[in-house]
Amino acid sequence: IQSKLPGVSTTIFSVMSKLATEHNAINLSQGFPDYACDPKLIELVNKAMKDGFNQYAPMPGSTFLKETIAEKVEKLYHIKYNPETEITVTAGGTQAIFTALAAIINAGDEVIIFEPAYDSYAPTVKLLGGLVKTYELAPPGYAIDWDMVKKLFTAKTRMIILNTPQNPTGSILSSDDMKSLIKLITGTDILILSDEVYEHLIYDEQKHQSVMLYPELKQRSFIVASFGKLLHATGWKLGYCLAPERLTEEFRKVHQFNVFSVNSPMQQAIADYIKEPKNYSEIGNFFQQKRDYFRNLLAESRFKLLPCNGSYFQCASYSDISDEKDTDFSMRLIKEFGVATIPVSAFYQKATDHKIIRFCFAKENATLALAAGKLKNV
Amino acid sequence: IQSKLPGVSTTIFSVMSKLATEHNAINLSQGFPDYACDPKLIELVNKAMKDGFNQYAPMPGSTFLKETIAEKVEKLYHIKYNPETEITVTAGGTQAIFTALAAIINAGDEVIIFEPAYDSYAPTVKLLGGLVKTYELAPPGYAIDWDMVKKLFTAKTRMIILNTPQNPTGSILSSDDMKSLIKLITGTDILILSDEVYEHLIYDEQKHQSVMLYPELKQRSFIVASFGKLLHATGWKLGYCLAPERLTEEFRKVHQFNVFSVNSPMQQAIADYIKEPKNYSEIGNFFQQKRDYFRNLLAESRFKLLPCNGSYFQCASYSDISDEKDTDFSMRLIKEFGVATIPVSAFYQKATDHKIIRFCFAKENATLALAAGKLKNV
Ligand SMILES: CSCCC(=O)C(=O)O
Ligand SMILES: CSCCC(=O)C(=O)O
Repeated sequence: IQSKLPGVSTTIFSVMSKLATEHNAINLSQGFPDYACDPKLIELVNKAMKDGFNQYAPMPGSTFLKETIAEKVEKLYHIKYNPETEITVTAGGTQAIFTALAAIINAGDEVIIFEPAYDSYAPTVKLLGGLVKTYELAPPGYAIDWDMVKKLFTAKTRMIILNTPQNPTGSILSSDDMKSLIKLITGTDILILSDEVYEHLIYDEQKHQSVMLYPELKQRSFIVASFGKLLHATGWKLGYCLAPERLTEEFRKVHQFNVFSVNSPMQQAIADYIKEPKNYSEIGNFFQQKRDYFRNLLAESRFKLLPCNGSYFQCASYSDISDEKDTDFSMRLIKEFGVATIPVSAFYQKATDHKIIRFCFAKENATLALAAGKLKNV
Repeated sequence: IQSKLPGVSTTIFSVMSKLATEHNAINLSQGFPDYACDPKLIELVNKAMKDGFNQYAPMPGSTFLKETIAEKVEKLYHIKYNPETEITVTAGGTQAIFTALAAIINAGDEVIIFEPAYDSYAPTVKLLGGLVKTYELAPPGYAIDWDMVKKLFTAKTRMIILNTPQNPTGSILSSDDMKSLIKLITGTDILILSDEVYEHLIYDEQKHQSVMLYPELKQRSFIVASFGKLLHATGWKLGYCLAPERLTEEFRKVHQFNVFSVNSPMQQAIADYIKEPKNYSEIGNFFQQKRDYFRNLLAESRFKLLPCNGSYFQCASYSDISDEKDTDFSMRLIKEFGVATIPVSAFYQKATDHKIIRFCFAKENATLALAAGKLKNV
């Protein structure tokens, strides 16, 4: 049979996590914590199951959870979303991204993405018959020149995918970025898919620039959020999508035929859990300490660290160490040094070779210390 | 914005379950049990969470669960599937259906479906740019005349969607059906999507005709199965897709960008649970008793019961009671009699009026008795 995604193979995250296991390497590749989530959260899932939340949740999500999300969002950003018509619970951030694209992209539509980028964006657009227009960000700062973005606009431009804090670079968008974007987009009917799964993982007292903070953007945006990243439980596969009613309507039309509804006891438990007032800056501090701890350890290595303003990830150049391609270099790191990472070329569609790899620092300090010990020998 | 699914509104299941709650009606509409799942299963989820299965499961599914599925399938059907390359764990049966279609259907491809049909098939095909060719089954037997199916074949026919036991009719395919299908399809490269989520819910000692039992079909089939239906936990959203390697490869290319992976602790718990030898005919007997109990109760009503050979569902004609359209009649059943059902016209794309409604009998006997008491007054 003819493949609809001929160039696509297994995601780099699956490949690397598998190799890490096979070579008994420390896994700093795929983005997930290696420490336990709050036992209280586990208790709440157990309670929800015992209380009988084991049958289909409502299609757009548990009413209780949607209301709790609305409260959380309002408290955090002072922006209102209507739980009835503007919030949909999803089986993780990736499913929300897929569903939003499937709801909007028609054959021939163009979607602008910024590379390096999370590896689902481009193939999903292509699967739907869309065309990917790529803006390449340059290391080390990965900044956007919005005048250059404008040059990518055509009559077919349907959507721009934003991601802040960004995976894999750890860069973030500033309020100036947002203002430039607003200028660019005003008068067009271009939509935005804003992947904000790392919204709480932002460092050095910087403020997360959610598109919801800008009315001109909010009214045309799907915003994707992740409970996995917030609650240290990436394997529960729970997230949500915020979008104005006209967009949520289209999103749900696809959602109901894609996964129909999402894990019921876990929705209940998460609603119970986040219902209690939380200090969301704590989670930022938690990860900032990990970033600083890891960066300090690597200061003694031959890796050159790139800036990291947010996310789970620290990128580093190995150009002082080796001339190898990043795929070869990261393979050798696993086999010879016992540390799994992600070659950043995996986040580009075309062949690139910036000699940069990505470390996930959402790990126990002991894991980070162990990995750094090995990386110092590289 | 222009909708990609202009004719589509919220699924009938969501609408009816919501109305049932609003009118405090007995909910025999959406297909889910109203009794508890095995407490042992809940314990196992609790254990899996405490054991730390809270981060991303492998993309195609937990290795342990895939191996356990292979064992179950082999024990039950004496057919081998390779867990490494032919089994993918999904976020429920609906997601498996969506993903298989998204992996295969190109713009202009034709897909044959048998109506009445589960309401995700047609819109999903259309969303992907495919064309639905519909074969209309006639009550009360809903049998297939395969010579007529052949007339739907064109050079563009890409796939046939089967569903046995069938939702909503409770009809099942026979070995003669399978033989006719094989004759029809031999020499073509038409694929099959076989929705077998009710595989265990088959009655009167009949044998489930899985496409896997026929090598000529197996090699071209995606088979969709559901743990929700097997374990009385529809809200956990766990299922799987069996398909030969060349099809599984394409399935996973889409799966990894759709939901990426599926709830981790629940995969572990279900594997633990079904690892222990089970007598799968018990679950058939369990539901057969419910069917018989409900049919006996309704014998005293003015509803005319259609045959029911499998699934959660009993269909009934109300033509002796009323001339109303089935949507009006089922609305009146909720409001005046306090029983929620599904009008079978919801399972057709074009307007139909067979005066048939669907009851879900996967309910406590007490619930069924209470509903029947009300239905006798209709
Ligand atoms: C959903 S797969 C992997 C997690 C992730 O976002 C990453 O490692 O980049
Ligand atoms: C996934 S929605 C509803 C369940 C079902 O299959 C039905 O009621 O027909």
